[in-house]
Amino acid sequence: MIRRVGFIGTGIMGLPMAGHLLKAGFAVQAYNRTRSRAEPLADQGATLVDSPAAAARDADAVITIVSDTPDVQSVFLGADGVCETLARGAVAVDMSTISPVVTQEIAKAVEQRGAAFLDAPVSGGKVGAEKGTLSIMCGGPAEAFERVRPLFEAMGKNIVHCGPNGYGQLTKLCNQIMCGLNLLGVCEAFLLAEKAGLDLSKVLQATTAGAAGSWALANLGEKMRVRDFAPAFMVDLQQKDLRLVLEQASGNRLTLPGTALVSQLFHANQAAGEGREGTQALLKVLERMSQIAL
Amino acid sequence: MIRRVGFIGTGIMGLPMAGHLLKAGFAVQAYNRTRSRAEPLADQGATLVDSPAAAARDADAVITIVSDTPDVQSVFLGADGVCETLARGAVAVDMSTISPVVTQEIAKAVEQRGAAFLDAPVSGGKVGAEKGTLSIMCGGPAEAFERVRPLFEAMGKNIVHCGPNGYGQLTKLCNQIMCGLNLLGVCEAFLLAEKAGLDLSKVLQATTAGAAGSWALANLGEKMRVRDFAPAFMVDLQQKDLRLVLEQASGNRLTLPGTALVSQLFHANQAAGEGREGTQALLKVLERMSQIAL
Repeated sequence: MIRRVGFIGTGIMGLPMAGHLLKAGFAVQAYNRTRSRAEPLADQGATLVDSPAAAARDADAVITIVSDTPDVQSVFLGADGVCETLARGAVAVDMSTISPVVTQEIAKAVEQRGAAFLDAPVSGGKVGAEKGTLSIMCGGPAEAFERVRPLFEAMGKNIVHCGPNGYGQLTKLCNQIMCGLNLLGVCEAFLLAEKAGLDLSKVLQATTAGAAGSWALANLGEKMRVRDFAPAFMVDLQQKDLRLVLEQASGNRLTLPGTALVSQLFHANQAAGEGREGTQALLKVLERMSQIAL
Repeated sequence: MIRRVGFIGTGIMGLPMAGHLLKAGFAVQAYNRTRSRAEPLADQGATLVDSPAAAARDADAVITIVSDTPDVQSVFLGADGVCETLARGAVAVDMSTISPVVTQEIAKAVEQRGAAFLDAPVSGGKVGAEKGTLSIMCGGPAEAFERVRPLFEAMGKNIVHCGPNGYGQLTKLCNQIMCGLNLLGVCEAFLLAEKAGLDLSKVLQATTAGAAGSWALANLGEKMRVRDFAPAFMVDLQQKDLRLVLEQASGNRLTLPGTALVSQLFHANQAAGEGREGTQALLKVLERMSQIAL
């Protein structure tokens, strides 16, 4: 039975996710590298602590959601890391999107402490985190998955156990491939529509409900139309995810020409200083190439 | 008030569409180049005729849904064509997907006869045509659009007037760009999943409802999973549509790298003799490149 939860990483995603755990009645001890960003949680009843090790101490479950592979390695295996204090029988759940290979290494280190490890990356962005409607794709022992299900249900809606450790991350990589290419489709469609002088709201109305429909069209299309490039999910983070996809492809000699193209085009966002804008800023890369100024 | 409808082109799409008009109580006079393919309509009460001109004679509205730009030109402007008999005050509606530029030429020829022309291509494929749930994107005079609205409502669900003649076709091109790239996203995600040994039904379950979701994933993903490559929408026809997109892009100096990539990959389907399979056969091109044999 899970009561006390260590929560590590209170950024755009982690902050509202931890908030949902508090609302669901769990005792949360939260750690964030920049402590000030965790403070809203203290107002909601969380205890703020000073290290990953302190977050894991006496916790029934530990959740991590940080940026990239080295961050997760350091949180688990570094000095003052989770593995220094994690209790026998506890469950550690990494909800970051990181390397499936490193995931399996961390799982082994956690198992050596007599605890269980789950990789459970999420999809749905800031809005999904705030509404508690994230998709959660989980890899690891089924028994541990069932034990932390109440935590997942507080934060997400579509919760799937995908297989052993690493399979959550691999499923997330599949997810990110589709996010990237769906987005490129919306951008290229908008480009043609803009150049032809179509009314973009009519284009959205005519295409969103049909065979061209996608979450990207329904959600990011409207943002592009009103030229709102604020981040719900940042270019820099999508690039990190696509880098993981392309590493996986490279290691397995998979040809993913579309994903490679999307990643290359996002480089142009990053070169233009747009890495911290939302992924819908990809539209601007294509507009610049075709000399469309809006 | 529309009572008598000439219907030209009773293929995969046209046959069920004309059937819906009959069910809605319209008198249908149908023409198809290969007459035998129109015969199921005769059983449902349609009159079969021997030329486009005969289909248009005394009709309040004429609907055409044929394969490509030259087919529409020939049906309207050729010998025994619609423009030989179309009545003053009638409405001609082309529901094929063809060149927006040629569309405007045909519109002029129809207007010179004192009739109105609408371009109203559809999206939703065979299933949408059969269920009467097509998306219909229409360009042309608003008055004519309102007059034939009862016909559209018998065949479709999401019916949008997009602007003057050509704007229906341009909107359809936007639609096809997204269909193509959404499909490529599903294929590349499947490729990674297959190589990694993921359970594809779990991948579908974990990703379809979230930020990676698309019509393509929800509909074609399941077909790919069970390796059903039967056509709901054929590679050859999607290639024709992408050719129209790339012609439009070329004429306007638009850079559409993703769409160009999808079109190039579909060439590999066509080279392998898979042009008459469903567009989901794109998966096989990627599998062959990565030497994945299933």
